[in-house]
Amino acid sequence: MFRSDKLINYPIKEVPYYHIYGRTDLYRNDIPLFWNGSGIEVNVSGSELWIELDTDCDLYEPWISTEINGAFMSRQMLLPGHQKLCLFRGLDPNTVKNVHFNRELQAMSEDDVCHIIIKGLESDGSFYPIEPKKYRLEFIGDSITSGEGTYGFTSDVDWVSMYMSSSINYAVMTSKMLNADYRLISQGGWGVYTGWDNNRNHAIPKYYDKISGLSWGIENEKLGASKLNDFSSWIPDAIIVNLGTNDASAFVQPPFPDPETGETYKQRTEEDGSYNEEDLSNFRNAVISFIKLLRKHNPSSHILWAYGMLGYDLSLPIAMAVSDYRRETGDDNVFYLQLPNTKEDSYGAHMHPGVKSHKLASEVLYDYLKSLFDRKEV
Amino acid sequence: MFRSDKLINYPIKEVPYYHIYGRTDLYRNDIPLFWNGSGIEVNVSGSELWIELDTDCDLYEPWISTEINGAFMSRQMLLPGHQKLCLFRGLDPNTVKNVHFNRELQAMSEDDVCHIIIKGLESDGSFYPIEPKKYRLEFIGDSITSGEGTYGFTSDVDWVSMYMSSSINYAVMTSKMLNADYRLISQGGWGVYTGWDNNRNHAIPKYYDKISGLSWGIENEKLGASKLNDFSSWIPDAIIVNLGTNDASAFVQPPFPDPETGETYKQRTEEDGSYNEEDLSNFRNAVISFIKLLRKHNPSSHILWAYGMLGYDLSLPIAMAVSDYRRETGDDNVFYLQLPNTKEDSYGAHMHPGVKSHKLASEVLYDYLKSLFDRKEV
Amino acid sequence: MFRSDKLINYPIKEVPYYHIYGRTDLYRNDIPLFWNGSGIEVNVSGSELWIELDTDCDLYEPWISTEINGAFMSRQMLLPGHQKLCLFRGLDPNTVKNVHFNRELQAMSEDDVCHIIIKGLESDGSFYPIEPKKYRLEFIGDSITSGEGTYGFTSDVDWVSMYMSSSINYAVMTSKMLNADYRLISQGGWGVYTGWDNNRNHAIPKYYDKISGLSWGIENEKLGASKLNDFSSWIPDAIIVNLGTNDASAFVQPPFPDPETGETYKQRTEEDGSYNEEDLSNFRNAVISFIKLLRKHNPSSHILWAYGMLGYDLSLPIAMAVSDYRRETGDDNVFYLQLPNTKEDSYGAHMHPGVKSHKLASEVLYDYLKSLFDRKEV
Amino acid sequence: MFRSDKLINYPIKEVPYYHIYGRTDLYRNDIPLFWNGSGIEVNVSGSELWIELDTDCDLYEPWISTEINGAFMSRQMLLPGHQKLCLFRGLDPNTVKNVHFNRELQAMSEDDVCHIIIKGLESDGSFYPIEPKKYRLEFIGDSITSGEGTYGFTSDVDWVSMYMSSSINYAVMTSKMLNADYRLISQGGWGVYTGWDNNRNHAIPKYYDKISGLSWGIENEKLGASKLNDFSSWIPDAIIVNLGTNDASAFVQPPFPDPETGETYKQRTEEDGSYNEEDLSNFRNAVISFIKLLRKHNPSSHILWAYGMLGYDLSLPIAMAVSDYRRETGDDNVFYLQLPNTKEDSYGAHMHPGVKSHKLASEVLYDYLKSLFDRKEV
Repeated sequence: MFRSDKLINYPIKEVPYYHIYGRTDLYRNDIPLFWNGSGIEVNVSGSELWIELDTDCDLYEPWISTEINGAFMSRQMLLPGHQKLCLFRGLDPNTVKNVHFNRELQAMSEDDVCHIIIKGLESDGSFYPIEPKKYRLEFIGDSITSGEGTYGFTSDVDWVSMYMSSSINYAVMTSKMLNADYRLISQGGWGVYTGWDNNRNHAIPKYYDKISGLSWGIENEKLGASKLNDFSSWIPDAIIVNLGTNDASAFVQPPFPDPETGETYKQRTEEDGSYNEEDLSNFRNAVISFIKLLRKHNPSSHILWAYGMLGYDLSLPIAMAVSDYRRETGDDNVFYLQLPNTKEDSYGAHMHPGVKSHKLASEVLYDYLKSLFDRKEV
Repeated sequence: MFRSDKLINYPIKEVPYYHIYGRTDLYRNDIPLFWNGSGIEVNVSGSELWIELDTDCDLYEPWISTEINGAFMSRQMLLPGHQKLCLFRGLDPNTVKNVHFNRELQAMSEDDVCHIIIKGLESDGSFYPIEPKKYRLEFIGDSITSGEGTYGFTSDVDWVSMYMSSSINYAVMTSKMLNADYRLISQGGWGVYTGWDNNRNHAIPKYYDKISGLSWGIENEKLGASKLNDFSSWIPDAIIVNLGTNDASAFVQPPFPDPETGETYKQRTEEDGSYNEEDLSNFRNAVISFIKLLRKHNPSSHILWAYGMLGYDLSLPIAMAVSDYRRETGDDNVFYLQLPNTKEDSYGAHMHPGVKSHKLASEVLYDYLKSLFDRKEV
Repeated sequence: MFRSDKLINYPIKEVPYYHIYGRTDLYRNDIPLFWNGSGIEVNVSGSELWIELDTDCDLYEPWISTEINGAFMSRQMLLPGHQKLCLFRGLDPNTVKNVHFNRELQAMSEDDVCHIIIKGLESDGSFYPIEPKKYRLEFIGDSITSGEGTYGFTSDVDWVSMYMSSSINYAVMTSKMLNADYRLISQGGWGVYTGWDNNRNHAIPKYYDKISGLSWGIENEKLGASKLNDFSSWIPDAIIVNLGTNDASAFVQPPFPDPETGETYKQRTEEDGSYNEEDLSNFRNAVISFIKLLRKHNPSSHILWAYGMLGYDLSLPIAMAVSDYRRETGDDNVFYLQLPNTKEDSYGAHMHPGVKSHKLASEVLYDYLKSLFDRKEV
Repeated sequence: MFRSDKLINYPIKEVPYYHIYGRTDLYRNDIPLFWNGSGIEVNVSGSELWIELDTDCDLYEPWISTEINGAFMSRQMLLPGHQKLCLFRGLDPNTVKNVHFNRELQAMSEDDVCHIIIKGLESDGSFYPIEPKKYRLEFIGDSITSGEGTYGFTSDVDWVSMYMSSSINYAVMTSKMLNADYRLISQGGWGVYTGWDNNRNHAIPKYYDKISGLSWGIENEKLGASKLNDFSSWIPDAIIVNLGTNDASAFVQPPFPDPETGETYKQRTEEDGSYNEEDLSNFRNAVISFIKLLRKHNPSSHILWAYGMLGYDLSLPIAMAVSDYRRETGDDNVFYLQLPNTKEDSYGAHMHPGVKSHKLASEVLYDYLKSLFDRKEV
């Protein structure tokens, strides 16, 4: 195979210009990608570009996707090991190419060794500055935000890496429409108060302040996952919370016996099917507490709870909690938005939103955030 | 012109089968059409069908539209006088045609003589039974539900009859998707607590229990508009309330001096632009009161507040009011749904939702109501 | 009813500015509308506009539609008699409104008294010049160009006026996309060589040089229908011929005994279903002759045969005829374009193209004509 | 990484059931993939599936894509060497998965060592029969059929592998809609008589009867590329020829001096821009000759020349040639279809048709072929 004879290998932190997507530990020589939507963007001339990676996994192998000049180009599985991927070759050496390398797979709380680490780039071209995006958006969610089911046939029901993505994802779509940098923090099956199976450890707020608090195990520890996130280093213009879908499931799922505490948890329903008011109240309090936590770490950000892509069951309780929070604190910079429920023709795999549903949600979100930003700018 | 020599004239109440859309006084020999979406449906054989009407107006002439076999066929202005309109002619006399004659114009509180009265039908065919619709839906709203701007070019801003409709209207679209009979009760510029200009008389709840309480004047009085509505005669499966858009406007409009009472009304904002809490509380109380009124007259109906097609400003207060109502009364059969805001490419005339916006809203509503009905049927 | 007290009645030819659509006799004091798509356009201020008409019909009543500022506003049946229609009322008297009044019904060879004559306008405003369109397009066709089935439910099969239109019509859509003035010359069931039923009198070329040669009877005679058309008065940039669909039907229909000549006509098929070569050759010659006739009357116009919306059966013979014409005459300004066949989900009433099919055809035509015009302009 | 301990390695020809897409040499122990759209399909249970490949290239690296259960899953570059790719892992071992592995890159006449060879599969599951497709379609074309520009940003103009595909391709889309097996034979820049640059060696007919006649070099020779194709082994129901786009370019490109013969070739235009009749005649004769060649090898197949996605310049000459062929031979099973030109909003990269254009073309082709097949079946 013909290869350029002018390729230079750059340890990633010696690349003159690059932009990192997603929370990571900035004090390392390399760049671990913890979350889906994490990745790197460069502007580079030259005929070839390669990326050097360290990857590992036990059960859930990471997938990645790439874009060249904003157009989707590749999507593939990564197997364990040190490897170089060619991102392009044979292009006109004089033009500057915009290249975006994305992690497709969510941070994986069920696979302690799963990781992608960007070690370096190799090119025969030069690197150029990247125009900063106009906004910064942080999305916090569950399997919907993890893009579960955005790949796969509608009848596929396995819970595996390849069906999750950031490349077909309302959060990324919304960000692109707004010309925004983005960070995704999400975990399938988790909620704000409890996981879908009544496991209360599966609550995003418990891990929000770490770089990637739900990436467990020694390996992730070494990579900085459990370090406190430096909230001053990246201040979002808006935080979008898409949680509640699994909290609603918990009401109709069996009790969860916590193996560590011996306690059994259950969000209860009444005989007529309505939600038990005490448990609902715990949920609402969890919403309020999480908003307070978000506000503590992000004093200036718009906070928008955006919910509904898989049913509106907890819409009123969330709205009530948001209202109560505003009344209690006087903080008016917190909002609630219903996203359109996924229609029958818009499902992807595993009864999760498909591309049409993600597209529709992104249009509603775009519209809402744009109004919010425009109002502020007036 | 060739005319069938077998035409028979039927006073409307002597037509063997017909279905009336919209609230009206059933104890009359004729059928006054008060609201947009009011009308009549027949199944009829024969080659010709004519409808006999009495019409009047001062400033705001009524418009009507027709459908043959469910397909849009005509839309036209009606001028004052006694008149016969030909609904079809020259058709195969042996087939049964479904014909739907609709009022396009809202009940017009600003034109006391505006009316359409169906007096009779004329045909050379026979009338056949009409299959009852599966559901009954009552929609209560403002200019959005009056279809304002669904006709007209985007830059048209006159407030005239021809830009309003039931033929392009999320309420009618939703009903057709659900195979539902429908009634619309709406008035442009009105709210649940106050009109867009702070006029508190322009509140739908004040007139809800009359057949068409905001059709004023002696003529409408004679037609039964101010009679109490017989709620037992048509029990809706669901009531959809799309009010709040004008209540939000009132916060940014000048005070309204009530000419009758001498008082001045104003929904106030604080210096930072936020809504005055006392005024907001009045609004929330109005929402709660209206739900109670709806519940009183409609003990078994789902009640769904569906809001947002022209901005989400009062979304949280409405949701909070709905929650408070549920908590206070234990009545869980009341819901809140955000409808998608009108996007830049989806406006009709006069900065109101256009056909794309109505279509999108109807899809979200359809999805929501279908879930509600399906759950009930399980 | 309130009416402006400043209304002035203008005999139509005394209106200062107006634009006539469609071929008509320009030497009269009034404006007969012969073809679908025929009509009048004005720019007018004032609060009200009325149009004064004389109408008649025996079996096939004419329908009309209106647009205000380019937006569809009304569509209705016209019954015989002298009448005034109100086109708008109650508008801001100071703004200038663009109003377009259209005939929906094709010239009707089967109803000798069918006509619409514009006699005058009545308004309290002033008339303003109309910006000339960029191009002029003449469309020649059959039921497709008559818009048959663009209104009506898919299962409707009656052959009546109300299912035909110019308001949903690929010819008008194409013209609007190109900012073009347009004239439609079409008749349902007719062809270039023979009608669908093998009646060879039903061939458009026989009547092309008259203003409206297939509007028969004394009344139409009086209105100038049978006068020779003045081809120098309106020179089309392009002529689009959409004929052949009925010529194809003739091959599979029974023979037609001509009552006048006693002869029997039939386009024959061979035993294997293929077209008889002699009959096919007659068809091709008819295509060539018609192109020659078009060229004689329109020396400078692009001529485009555009065919296929209801099947491609005669696509190759038409293309061959066009090629032969070009080879024989050296006239390269004649083209052939296949229009997309109507897909199963795109039918209107009576197995004719519906709105989706007309839209798709107009996009293909727009693209083709735009290239043609742009090339010329370079 | 966890791996199933029951993986069994199958040399590809020992896999019990598989389906091969694309022309290849069936007498080998492995499966070389020559054309884009070439590949393999299996139904397999088990938790994991791997594919074993030999790959090479000099300048133009091959790309591949995969589908699981008909849904697009991955797309990636292949670099030279012996390698195993994991096609899925972690799936429910008991369900049967349909897996389709596709070559994205056209046969590459400009890279003699470029190849993909499937050597084997590795799985812990069992293989199951594959339901035969209903039809067989052979597509013959140029860069359009090679999917050039279906990936990449609209302004990208490099001529490289990654912008070509079979995964976004009207030929594959059409086949899927018809439930058809398919074979693609295409080369960017080539024509039926001459390449885009007047190089007459770049004519598909010269290489049609070989398995992959334009895959040159010793390596491809060894893989069987230059063997005669066994036309009896796979009889297409229809052959779709999409050639002519580059033949049209040749008229406006500079002359081509053939380095081997010393001759200079040029399709000439006249002063007025029209095509030289002698050169046009050569083109038409090439069309006729190619149809005769296709007919010789495929006596029973429908032959459809489908042209127009990048301009209609040679539409009439092609139609004339098809007509002349039919007249000369009496073979009526040859057709001509115009495909819709690519609209301004439907381009992909490098001024080639993008996904919207391929989709539209496939809908028109589907409609045409379905009619053809349905007629035959009656």
